[in-house]
Amino acid sequence: MRLKRGERVAIITKVLSDRPCKSFPLSWFQEMLGAAKSTLSEDLAVIKRAFEQFALGRIDSQQGVGGGVAYRPLRSPSYIREVLQDLCVLLQTPDRILPGGFLYMTDILFSPWWTSRLGEIFAAMFVDREPGFVVTMETKGIPVALMTAKYLDVPLVLLRRDHAVTEGSVVSINYVSGSSGRIQTMSLPKRALPRGARVLLIDDFMKAGGTCRGMLDIMAEFEAEVAGVGILVETKDPEKKLIVDYVSLIQLESISEHARTVSIHLSPRLVMLKNLTD
Amino acid sequence: MRLKRGERVAIITKVLSDRPCKSFPLSWFQEMLGAAKSTLSEDLAVIKRAFEQFALGRIDSQQGVGGGVAYRPLRSPSYIREVLQDLCVLLQTPDRILPGGFLYMTDILFSPWWTSRLGEIFAAMFVDREPGFVVTMETKGIPVALMTAKYLDVPLVLLRRDHAVTEGSVVSINYVSGSSGRIQTMSLPKRALPRGARVLLIDDFMKAGGTCRGMLDIMAEFEAEVAGVGILVETKDPEKKLIVDYVSLIQLESISEHARTVSIHLSPRLVMLKNLTD
Repeated sequence: MRLKRGERVAIITKVLSDRPCKSFPLSWFQEMLGAAKSTLSEDLAVIKRAFEQFALGRIDSQQGVGGGVAYRPLRSPSYIREVLQDLCVLLQTPDRILPGGFLYMTDILFSPWWTSRLGEIFAAMFVDREPGFVVTMETKGIPVALMTAKYLDVPLVLLRRDHAVTEGSVVSINYVSGSSGRIQTMSLPKRALPRGARVLLIDDFMKAGGTCRGMLDIMAEFEAEVAGVGILVETKDPEKKLIVDYVSLIQLESISEHARTVSIHLSPRLVMLKNLTD
Repeated sequence: MRLKRGERVAIITKVLSDRPCKSFPLSWFQEMLGAAKSTLSEDLAVIKRAFEQFALGRIDSQQGVGGGVAYRPLRSPSYIREVLQDLCVLLQTPDRILPGGFLYMTDILFSPWWTSRLGEIFAAMFVDREPGFVVTMETKGIPVALMTAKYLDVPLVLLRRDHAVTEGSVVSINYVSGSSGRIQTMSLPKRALPRGARVLLIDDFMKAGGTCRGMLDIMAEFEAEVAGVGILVETKDPEKKLIVDYVSLIQLESISEHARTVSIHLSPRLVMLKNLTD
């Protein structure tokens, strides 16, 4: 049965947006949809135009033998700011203040919908730096890091707090948690990351930056090239962090247990990104 | 500017497939795309037909005031079997055998592409049981559980191995790991799950079923109604598990460290699912 334009457009859109950053050869769609190359090129032009108009990301087509078509999740700066503003509003709810002045964020960090959008935002920020892996430290950062990896179509590599006995030989380092001053361990099985990989580090929370510093150190053991560091929430204090080159989305200024208020806003580090200027 | 059919179809397909199981009011699309209801109904019919023909899932529209349109990720049984067969082939690679007769699966359990497809498969199996939450135990099952929750558009709730000090009052239980016989603890903050919730339990691996038994026990503390239990890989031995009512995708029969062979195949428990008969 011959497909109509609308039907082909639906299929191509579904396939491309299910797997962002993956390049599909045009011949693959030709075979799947039984359509000529010229017809498919017109279909792709329709999708491209629609995505551009609604700022849903970019459709890239490369011509030639190795050519293919891919969807890149480049959301607009105004969309990104809107999502992050919504998140700040949500995080300001007084009943998120926990004893000890902590902020309850676990529901958001494990929400598929929030983490999808946050992962998409990190992907939009770092896609041009072409990381080959996303690396995170267990546990709470896993969902955002996984979604970032999904939108970049690269594997996620997990740093563990203990030695996992079931994963062969392991590289471990000690690091000092900057806020508590305690010595901790992080480890990564040798087989989990090839030497010299290009990595994007993602974490959910940064105070002094000790964990991030440790992540950079263990990456050095793997001779990895760090393409970027993305943090979801950083605290304003201490102002001097143990790492210098990173991006954060949100800055937590203060929590008052007594007044039941949370002061949280878009991170000043957001403006550093050229992808984010309209 | 007036949009053409292809452009509207691209946008609607992107929005629906980015958030499976979420019902979008038709009026929302009307406003977004500046199109009449009748035009949108025709667009949706095109998408529906295309998705049906390529077994990409179902487009559901409810008529009336509270009506809306949603994409349900109901992949075909043949697609599901194909994905799982591919996974078995991958898991049979001899260099996945670790000292002690363990199987290295971490790369797959943290692969965005594998976990997307596996989460979609679990969602297809359990969508009709309408769970309100997906629940999993840290750490390795998190990505598959998150993707399952994403395809069902419900929150993910994480059981922890220790008491997380930063999350308010916590319910803890002890359970006996069936294979090691050791007593362990799992805990869940009270605020993480409302009483009487309908939950789907997802875990990556089951041997004797002690962890799953513990998950059921802690769910009882929350008066939760268990809509289903989904396991990615179960071992054939012991044949008698500590839980009765569950679904598994893959069965690990044996690993021979000496002969460097892994015997692994589709789980006999797959056939129990009516969604899986063509």
